[in-house]
Amino acid sequence: MNESGRVEAFSDGVFAIAITLLILDVKTPSQDSGKSLAYQLAHLWPQYDAYVVSFLVIGIMWANHHQVFSFVARVDRTLVFLNLLLLMGVSALPWATSVVSSYLTQPKEARLAVALYGGFMVVHALTFTTLWWWLTRTGHLFDARVDEVRAKATRVRFALGTVVYPILVGFSFVNALLTLALHGVVAIYYAFNQLHVPTRPDTDSAAE
Amino acid sequence: MNESGRVEAFSDGVFAIAITLLILDVKTPSQDSGKSLAYQLAHLWPQYDAYVVSFLVIGIMWANHHQVFSFVARVDRTLVFLNLLLLMGVSALPWATSVVSSYLTQPKEARLAVALYGGFMVVHALTFTTLWWWLTRTGHLFDARVDEVRAKATRVRFALGTVVYPILVGFSFVNALLTLALHGVVAIYYAFNQLHVPTRPDTDSAAE
Amino acid sequence: MNESGRVEAFSDGVFAIAITLLILDVKTPSQDSGKSLAYQLAHLWPQYDAYVVSFLVIGIMWANHHQVFSFVARVDRTLVFLNLLLLMGVSALPWATSVVSSYLTQPKEARLAVALYGGFMVVHALTFTTLWWWLTRTGHLFDARVDEVRAKATRVRFALGTVVYPILVGFSFVNALLTLALHGVVAIYYAFNQLHVPTRPDTDSAAE
Amino acid sequence: MNESGRVEAFSDGVFAIAITLLILDVKTPSQDSGKSLAYQLAHLWPQYDAYVVSFLVIGIMWANHHQVFSFVARVDRTLVFLNLLLLMGVSALPWATSVVSSYLTQPKEARLAVALYGGFMVVHALTFTTLWWWLTRTGHLFDARVDEVRAKATRVRFALGTVVYPILVGFSFVNALLTLALHGVVAIYYAFNQLHVPTRPDTDSAAE
Repeated sequence: MNESGRVEAFSDGVFAIAITLLILDVKTPSQDSGKSLAYQLAHLWPQYDAYVVSFLVIGIMWANHHQVFSFVARVDRTLVFLNLLLLMGVSALPWATSVVSSYLTQPKEARLAVALYGGFMVVHALTFTTLWWWLTRTGHLFDARVDEVRAKATRVRFALGTVVYPILVGFSFVNALLTLALHGVVAIYYAFNQLHVPTRPDTDSAAE
Repeated sequence: MNESGRVEAFSDGVFAIAITLLILDVKTPSQDSGKSLAYQLAHLWPQYDAYVVSFLVIGIMWANHHQVFSFVARVDRTLVFLNLLLLMGVSALPWATSVVSSYLTQPKEARLAVALYGGFMVVHALTFTTLWWWLTRTGHLFDARVDEVRAKATRVRFALGTVVYPILVGFSFVNALLTLALHGVVAIYYAFNQLHVPTRPDTDSAAE
Repeated sequence: MNESGRVEAFSDGVFAIAITLLILDVKTPSQDSGKSLAYQLAHLWPQYDAYVVSFLVIGIMWANHHQVFSFVARVDRTLVFLNLLLLMGVSALPWATSVVSSYLTQPKEARLAVALYGGFMVVHALTFTTLWWWLTRTGHLFDARVDEVRAKATRVRFALGTVVYPILVGFSFVNALLTLALHGVVAIYYAFNQLHVPTRPDTDSAAE
Repeated sequence: MNESGRVEAFSDGVFAIAITLLILDVKTPSQDSGKSLAYQLAHLWPQYDAYVVSFLVIGIMWANHHQVFSFVARVDRTLVFLNLLLLMGVSALPWATSVVSSYLTQPKEARLAVALYGGFMVVHALTFTTLWWWLTRTGHLFDARVDEVRAKATRVRFALGTVVYPILVGFSFVNALLTLALHGVVAIYYAFNQLHVPTRPDTDSAAE
């Protein structure tokens, strides 16, 4: 396994654990509550909502991370460090998710909760953009397929994509529930419209 | 590692974590309960039951996922997305399991709990079938060993297999405890009677 | 990755998660208890004990599993199923550990708790022995280095090694605390005295 | 996968799980507390602090472990055992972190909590140094790139680096909060100033 391979394996582990821990925040109905199981299941909808959105969000984060790293052949210490910061944000998402699901039924507090959630998305977008800038700036960390000149040219477009999250933070204060749903929609949009890593015309684009 | 390899590694991680988290739902007897350890251990049987059945269920789900993906050479975005939906259901099973073990001793509520559990199995069967249809429809994602024409012909049989879970959902309302046991039996049956991925006569069937 | 590789990767995941979940059973001292941090830390010794012993036990189980599977080239459905049963026991050890650490200070109940713990070791030894018998019986699952005839001859010695755990179960009722310590000692013993997988004289013994 | 590869994979799993479990110690604000969400979020700062520092600490531990093992081609039983002891300390860090975050607002108790945390760092430094001594002493476990003679010469410098942690343990009793911050600073320092594994002049230094 080359250097880049073990960074990917470690990152995959963190993504897989963070995404699976989400379920721990969905409460189990309890006989002690004095309410019927059906009633309790029906009233857990904020937790289902938050679970589904966060699962999609972390899943797409993983897919994007995966796509970029499939073109990375070597890692330096800065890249390892930037990747660590990125994973720190990903790992914190189950906590942000549980804040959202705890307050989604309280109209006033829900705004702050969803804005906090959006804040984590902003941080993720910033670290991912920084990581991409570092890769395009150093150049020699990419594998041979990548067209470094054209990759550098994607920087601005890549950064522009991150504008959507600050807007969602602001929109949280208008409608928290709708904003949460929009986070899910944005995740699905990015699943099918990832930024392409530009490759040389004479190489195989294995990551398509 | 090729594309398909990293999707498998991520999926393996999610399966491994979900299956290991099941034990967190088995309560630890406590001195504060005022009852003897032996008494408490004996009365935890619904939790042992649910643990064993769900461990087998997730384990066999992994084995089937593993068998299909061992024939997948390439992934596209739709496959990554379908796989993510599949993992979302798998990750939620520890929660469904804890609902079952919490209500198994209450005859009336147990029916709904086991039906809910069966509902997750129906969802899993549907996403797995959809994933298989996508693979056989696109064809080019398979590796060279797979006989695409004969693979397409397995679709109906594959979908028929999923009929058993809706029946178990219905049967939950007749006998919850027996239905839970049947989920375990079906899992063991599928462990030894997986659908074969049809291979060309001139290639090695490595997954047999 | 060949078939055997992905079974190993999944098993590694389960072992790694089970061993890391052990720490969740060590309670965090709390300000609400009205006792000093130093006092609380000192009185958590049963939890430290159980943590250290179980960490060693699962670690050595992993090392043994790893050694055997490094000689396995192919898996069949029976092997996958036996491996799943083995992992079910491994995954349950954090629960058995928490039962032990909850009752270690109560002389009477501690006996049953440590016997229960030993019971899980007996089950693990039995499934591991069965898995080894299956491997030596089928023969064709091993890779080319293994001397199948001599491997078959190790069966009895392999099974004899499992006699130690039933004895420890019995000894739990004499001295629970000492028996727990003995589980740690046995684990360390097996770490340095694993059964060798017999290899052909003309092949490299990579697993030594 | 060679022997060393599977030890790395298992270790990666444990590191990835330990680092992701850290978030479970950050409490979710609750409606039942009778305080506003904003107030509760603001008063969770000890938990954020401890989370960020421990995430960096475990992340850098992983990076160092990774760097050393990228030069290891073979493992013997002693190395597997030393690695297990090292992972035992890493897995316990989420617990030490939760002790710190529970007591950081109590000036007196915080000293002991941070000293305890530092104690785990001392243990980690000692096991990592022992593991390095074993590797340089046996020599034949390294891959061909490593200059064994010069590697042996790094032992003293390597051990000297571990002096910083006992100092931090002592300093905990002067200023707990500052000491916790220093743990973060030391982690970042080590991220960019790892000890080099000396390689032969005629080989590729893949780990640079």
